[in-house]
Amino acid sequence: MKPDTIAAIATPPGRGGIGIIRISGPKALGLVPRFFGTTPVGPSPDLTLVSHTMVHGYIFDIKTGYVIDEVLLVTMEAPRSYTAEDVVEIQSHAGHLAMATILDQVVSAGARIAEPGEFTKRAFLNGRIDLTQAEAVADIINARTAGALKIAAAQGTGELKDAIHGAREILIELLALLEAAIDFPDETQDLVPSDQGIVRVKQVLTACEKFIQTYEEAHFLRDGIKLAICGPPNVGKSSLMNRLLQKERSIVTELPGTTRDLIEETLNINGITFLVSDTAGMHQTDDLVERIGIERAKKHIAASDLILFMKGADKEISESELQSIVPKDKKVILVINKIDLIEGKTAGSAGVEKSLPPTLAQLPQVRISALKNTGIDHLRKTITRLSMENIGEASSVVPNLRHRTALKRAIKSLKTAEAGFLNGQNEETLALDIRRAADLLGEITGNTAGIDILDTIFSNFCIGK
Amino acid sequence: MKPDTIAAIATPPGRGGIGIIRISGPKALGLVPRFFGTTPVGPSPDLTLVSHTMVHGYIFDIKTGYVIDEVLLVTMEAPRSYTAEDVVEIQSHAGHLAMATILDQVVSAGARIAEPGEFTKRAFLNGRIDLTQAEAVADIINARTAGALKIAAAQGTGELKDAIHGAREILIELLALLEAAIDFPDETQDLVPSDQGIVRVKQVLTACEKFIQTYEEAHFLRDGIKLAICGPPNVGKSSLMNRLLQKERSIVTELPGTTRDLIEETLNINGITFLVSDTAGMHQTDDLVERIGIERAKKHIAASDLILFMKGADKEISESELQSIVPKDKKVILVINKIDLIEGKTAGSAGVEKSLPPTLAQLPQVRISALKNTGIDHLRKTITRLSMENIGEASSVVPNLRHRTALKRAIKSLKTAEAGFLNGQNEETLALDIRRAADLLGEITGNTAGIDILDTIFSNFCIGK
Repeated sequence: MKPDTIAAIATPPGRGGIGIIRISGPKALGLVPRFFGTTPVGPSPDLTLVSHTMVHGYIFDIKTGYVIDEVLLVTMEAPRSYTAEDVVEIQSHAGHLAMATILDQVVSAGARIAEPGEFTKRAFLNGRIDLTQAEAVADIINARTAGALKIAAAQGTGELKDAIHGAREILIELLALLEAAIDFPDETQDLVPSDQGIVRVKQVLTACEKFIQTYEEAHFLRDGIKLAICGPPNVGKSSLMNRLLQKERSIVTELPGTTRDLIEETLNINGITFLVSDTAGMHQTDDLVERIGIERAKKHIAASDLILFMKGADKEISESELQSIVPKDKKVILVINKIDLIEGKTAGSAGVEKSLPPTLAQLPQVRISALKNTGIDHLRKTITRLSMENIGEASSVVPNLRHRTALKRAIKSLKTAEAGFLNGQNEETLALDIRRAADLLGEITGNTAGIDILDTIFSNFCIGK
Repeated sequence: MKPDTIAAIATPPGRGGIGIIRISGPKALGLVPRFFGTTPVGPSPDLTLVSHTMVHGYIFDIKTGYVIDEVLLVTMEAPRSYTAEDVVEIQSHAGHLAMATILDQVVSAGARIAEPGEFTKRAFLNGRIDLTQAEAVADIINARTAGALKIAAAQGTGELKDAIHGAREILIELLALLEAAIDFPDETQDLVPSDQGIVRVKQVLTACEKFIQTYEEAHFLRDGIKLAICGPPNVGKSSLMNRLLQKERSIVTELPGTTRDLIEETLNINGITFLVSDTAGMHQTDDLVERIGIERAKKHIAASDLILFMKGADKEISESELQSIVPKDKKVILVINKIDLIEGKTAGSAGVEKSLPPTLAQLPQVRISALKNTGIDHLRKTITRLSMENIGEASSVVPNLRHRTALKRAIKSLKTAEAGFLNGQNEETLALDIRRAADLLGEITGNTAGIDILDTIFSNFCIGK
């Protein structure tokens, strides 16, 4: 089916210097003389437009003939355009009514309003970009930290696409040999010796595992680091959360929590995004509802990347209190709050700072007063240092969660195939596993992605993209 | 002094498909190879850019060399550009961080961040547009009704500029003759016969008065119609105001009132903008503060274009009550509220509708119940009809308040000159008056506008325009 011609306002809504109305599709170029003219007298029916060349002119109301706005117009003929279709861009003044009125003319002339992400979807369907590049478009628009922008931009240039494509090509070649062996069993004795099969599968397996590792190490650069604040009740968790958020309040946004009682806030410290959450206070209780809240908090803590475990300077804490809340292998910073309470107190007197059991004393420690706002900067630095510890020079190719899921499933099939080659499995079964792995890699780039995957990705785009 | 090179994000802030970073000035073209390349490998130092031709490529971080975004770039060489200087436009993805990071590179390469309106100011200073066209840019961006947009667009094409320019040319020619007569009194006997002088002055006078008339008739298409709701206390003025605003709440904005107690709200009825105001209830009072409030309300009513004078259906009202509030020549709609109170009551019984004194009975009348929301649509229609009564086909050249002020002052000088010609005034004095009028017309187009006028106009622009 021939695609129709779509149009939308492509710049952000609001008032500004310049706004762009974008048109794409087979009729895009033909519509222009209906509403565009190079002089304020009226539309230019005999207009000659040179692709990729900016023309100055005016947009006219099709019905009344009045000038709507003075504009720049540029045509980009297929396939050298964003969508790889014929594209027209109108640069008008960015007033809401002016742009809406221009869009009205474009629709009157024969275009229809584009759906969210439809321009990018066409770029994908027409083969100009793959699915990882389409995802990168949304990632660039949404990037809030330098790290996220860098990953998105690299993905946009096709780095991830090329890497996945390379791995998939190896599987496709292997598959071709296996299928030849299936079709012509006599002529192709040992066409795929099992050691060669194993070498190729291992090669792809290594690549996939490398991606997963990169994801684990660096995905927070795009997704953010999960930072949980926990500890006994009334230790100052919410005060600390507010202190951490305060300085960067302008870029704080609220994300709906994954559990009923959690609200996560986004925080930018030194270019890294943190998803900070304040968990329920941990203590022994017989209240059922409260116990459910504590269980949820524990699960949340287990899924966090970094834990701020708080204690009051004037209170004791046991090793078992920490152990009951925080899983063993988690990164923990011990935050000793309320140091204002014990200031100036001498050892032995009432209200003096309580000493720590030996294992707790070994944790990275930061002493603060959330009340007096002391020690917070030091805490920020400690958080940053611990977060960056394992990263080194992060690869610019960092899969997202969708890619990771497909990679994990591909690895499973590849491991089955590897075992199959070792055990002299028949070619049919081997081919099945290899094909499954190739298809899963194809889901990442979009070669084999179903309608549901495409819909999910493009429906999250803004209008005009 | 040679202008420097400026840069700004020209599209509205926020997220969207496309954003534009605009650069203007003598260094604009030279900066491009520092951060732009046609392949993702790196900047292209030997780039050849053809004016007005879109190029696909990438923006690089000058320090790290990383790709920031995939972009389209177009150069527009002087004088064929918005500012009439060398201009570069970068079309990136419209993410806040992506655009800010690109702008950082442009600044690192040697541009400075533009002030609000600075691009348009340069277009004016370089003679590409006059001051009325610069004003039209802001008007187009801010237009909220079709009428306002039409006027702004016509002004943008130079219709007002040409008209004012034509009138001013007549004066300049007349001035040249007068000055020749002053310099060479012997050779130029009767160089400007008084009847010819009068003809020219009258010609310009007529043009100026026509503009003033157009302003009076049609300025509300751009500025809005001032609609005042007034009447005795507790007659339902605020309820009516809320009813009128309710339907179009999405485009309602609050404007700070000109007096302490007035809040004006903007309302769009059938494409016309109304500034609706709710005034203090009018009644006899000894309270000094209240009396001040009432005096202010009266002044406000006197400055309004259309009055909704309210009375309760169950209350009497005298002619003098109307006359004490509303000046004689004002357009008034008598709004009879609370008709729900008298429904079903028969004549003669208690609570029946009170009859009107003869002069009030002749006013256009609308019966409503603000409480029950009846009659409001009919009221809207009556408001629209009465507002459009005097307009006919409004000229597309409609001066704004600034223009009107200059025109009024020019008319004063022209009338003095006219009388001078009639009375045989000497050439020196005549030349003085003509020059003053020509300068005042020049203030409109900007030929003779001072720094203060320019600053006022351009400081109201948004960044990037």
